[in-house]
Amino acid sequence: MRMSQYFLPTMKETPSEAQIVSHRLMLRAGLVRQTSAGIYAWLPLGLRVLRNIERVVREEQDAAGAQEVLMPTIQSADLWRESGRYDAYGPEMLRIKDRHDREMLYGPTNEEMITVLFRDGVKSYRDLPKNLYHIQWKFRDEVRPRFGVMRGREFLMKDNYSFDIDKAGAIHSYNRMFVAYLRTFARMGLKAIPMRADTGPIGGDLSHEFIILAETGESAVFCHKGLVDKDILSRTIDYSADLQGIVNEWTSLYAATDEMHDAKAFEALPEGERLAARGIEVGHIFYFGTKYSKPMNAVVAGPGGEQITVEMGSYGIGVSRLVGGIIEASHDDAGIVWPDEIAPFKVAIVNLKPDDGAVGGACQKLYDALTAKGVDVLHDDRDIRPGGKFADMDLIGIPWQVIVGPKGLAAGKVEVKNRKTGVREEVAPEQVLARFS
Amino acid sequence: MRMSQYFLPTMKETPSEAQIVSHRLMLRAGLVRQTSAGIYAWLPLGLRVLRNIERVVREEQDAAGAQEVLMPTIQSADLWRESGRYDAYGPEMLRIKDRHDREMLYGPTNEEMITVLFRDGVKSYRDLPKNLYHIQWKFRDEVRPRFGVMRGREFLMKDNYSFDIDKAGAIHSYNRMFVAYLRTFARMGLKAIPMRADTGPIGGDLSHEFIILAETGESAVFCHKGLVDKDILSRTIDYSADLQGIVNEWTSLYAATDEMHDAKAFEALPEGERLAARGIEVGHIFYFGTKYSKPMNAVVAGPGGEQITVEMGSYGIGVSRLVGGIIEASHDDAGIVWPDEIAPFKVAIVNLKPDDGAVGGACQKLYDALTAKGVDVLHDDRDIRPGGKFADMDLIGIPWQVIVGPKGLAAGKVEVKNRKTGVREEVAPEQVLARFS
Repeated sequence: MRMSQYFLPTMKETPSEAQIVSHRLMLRAGLVRQTSAGIYAWLPLGLRVLRNIERVVREEQDAAGAQEVLMPTIQSADLWRESGRYDAYGPEMLRIKDRHDREMLYGPTNEEMITVLFRDGVKSYRDLPKNLYHIQWKFRDEVRPRFGVMRGREFLMKDNYSFDIDKAGAIHSYNRMFVAYLRTFARMGLKAIPMRADTGPIGGDLSHEFIILAETGESAVFCHKGLVDKDILSRTIDYSADLQGIVNEWTSLYAATDEMHDAKAFEALPEGERLAARGIEVGHIFYFGTKYSKPMNAVVAGPGGEQITVEMGSYGIGVSRLVGGIIEASHDDAGIVWPDEIAPFKVAIVNLKPDDGAVGGACQKLYDALTAKGVDVLHDDRDIRPGGKFADMDLIGIPWQVIVGPKGLAAGKVEVKNRKTGVREEVAPEQVLARFS
Repeated sequence: MRMSQYFLPTMKETPSEAQIVSHRLMLRAGLVRQTSAGIYAWLPLGLRVLRNIERVVREEQDAAGAQEVLMPTIQSADLWRESGRYDAYGPEMLRIKDRHDREMLYGPTNEEMITVLFRDGVKSYRDLPKNLYHIQWKFRDEVRPRFGVMRGREFLMKDNYSFDIDKAGAIHSYNRMFVAYLRTFARMGLKAIPMRADTGPIGGDLSHEFIILAETGESAVFCHKGLVDKDILSRTIDYSADLQGIVNEWTSLYAATDEMHDAKAFEALPEGERLAARGIEVGHIFYFGTKYSKPMNAVVAGPGGEQITVEMGSYGIGVSRLVGGIIEASHDDAGIVWPDEIAPFKVAIVNLKPDDGAVGGACQKLYDALTAKGVDVLHDDRDIRPGGKFADMDLIGIPWQVIVGPKGLAAGKVEVKNRKTGVREEVAPEQVLARFS
């Protein structure tokens, strides 16, 4: 993409309405714009990040055996009356009347709807287990939306739902998602720690939140330091095998959010192993048995023809919230530092002298060659001073900058800068190609 | 994907609520389920088709120079008051009050919102032209939703908006989309004919609908037969060059929807060149000048610093509607016939004897090899009779069926069936691999 043509309205000033760093940086880097209180439009650069997060989430869901569907945003109130949650849900539910005065709502979650789809489509124990997910916009009418996309009203979420014939199956489904979540967040460059959690309005008796650590986190968290160093990506995972061992490894060490915190147990740890920090919730998983399947009559025929009420769980990842969460966990004074896997572009070519034909030609050649190899490249061909380009590139956080100027080029060199470390190297243009392909 | 594990609830019976063939087939083939009047959930097989259509639309938008953004579904009523459309829009707009009693709405289209994003982000003529699109769910509260996803209430649409410094630029942007639309529909295997159209509530004085011909189409259309045979995909398109010649080629022959029909002009054609048929609208493009930019003050600084009101156009493709439209245009008595480019899977492997180890092994080997080559394969490993498998495969319309049975396998052969032509061939398993890679 040529930056001179790109819709990327960056800002020099810090927007006054933004209280936290991710919100400020998302506005300044031209990722989003607020269109109403707590509702955002995603501009091209921000949408690329959002899609990358979606892609990682999707790949890990598919690998763990979940199947993707897509449920609508608008639901019927009657559906929520079946589970008894319609009246209980409170003012965060956006309630709507259509032109025929039918009561509708903008879905804040989808337990009821997926249970109906399952109930109508699956009739036999032979068709179990099933795990269905979707990535769809939800709405929660927060009384005071704030912190940008971290606590918006319209937000993108991956939610899925597992259906099993018995509790043992349901726990296996839960464990699959537990491990898939560890992998998902690790691939995004995040240290996400599962913490035993309260089940809230979803219900059930087994639940973990996945919390990333960030100084600016919304809540206090307490855990064993060993959890921070654990690495899931180096393991080979077989989702059809028993995963309880891995889950135990991650849950045997102390970890709790403020509301579940047991100060006595925490303080029993040696002081050097205690970590009291702040965290941001990016995922939440629940096992709730027959809480929805029973009132909604989601049953299958068992081996002997008997009716069996299915055991369910649900699993959520805040996809749009993660954009803010990753920035909270990965930025410096100059701007965002995107982890490779979700960066909007992997490489930026910074043309220091756009009116110099040789420099322009060298940039274009690099751009074409990298693009042909499938690398996402942003080409800063704008007619502005180098200082402005450096500042913008650091602000928007592309992992690698390839800086091309007339002096270096005359010596057969371009400069490669790593956004995270700030390390610069002089290399020949053809080495750039080898490095990023 | 192994069909024994896939969430694909097909139906033998014709659902009584479905009046048209695409609706019947979408329910029977397990593509969608209705969750409220005119609102559908997409099951795994249907979602794959929807995503394929999105992909083609996206690729052609990007190739034509449009940039993707994502605007939210919920908009503020105040935004629509700026253009004067809030009161004018009528009961098809789903109006909502949030918990603070603020007037909101579920966007039926996005002219107002994109104009604000443009106005806030673009300040100089040097940043023009711009063409921004998104693919997002919309809502129109139809009084009587019908025909499945063809006339649903919540629907997925690609809409984009062009911004130019003058009318000549705006016409070029219009022509780019005109050509991009021809390519988009042609890639989906559709004969889409651009027809001069009424501009309706969007406004403006230049507009074309893109209509696909289908016996079951919703409206009468009249055109010159030559339009049906024109081929855009064999041309090389340079979107930066003048495209008026191509547009003229497609618009110089008679074509009109019922409401714009000029019976006298049509009947002046030789009888053999007249085509009176039925059609389905799948796209609509508009040039409307300053209809929104003027009241909403979307201006840029010109070369001399003067304020210039930008010229705009908007362009829509009904993405979810296309799933129904393509089925209307491509089906037979046995079911759906998916065009290759948007088929949910390209190849289905039909295992005629799942309890036969040799057959199962051969199927798995084919499946693994094709999948490794990047081919999307559905493997029918269900424990049901061959007749049921053949019927389901024809119903769901996978372009190629590879049929593996014990007798053929003993002779070193499998059968390859083309869904569209019905032609069957016996080939060696290794030839299957060569054919689909």
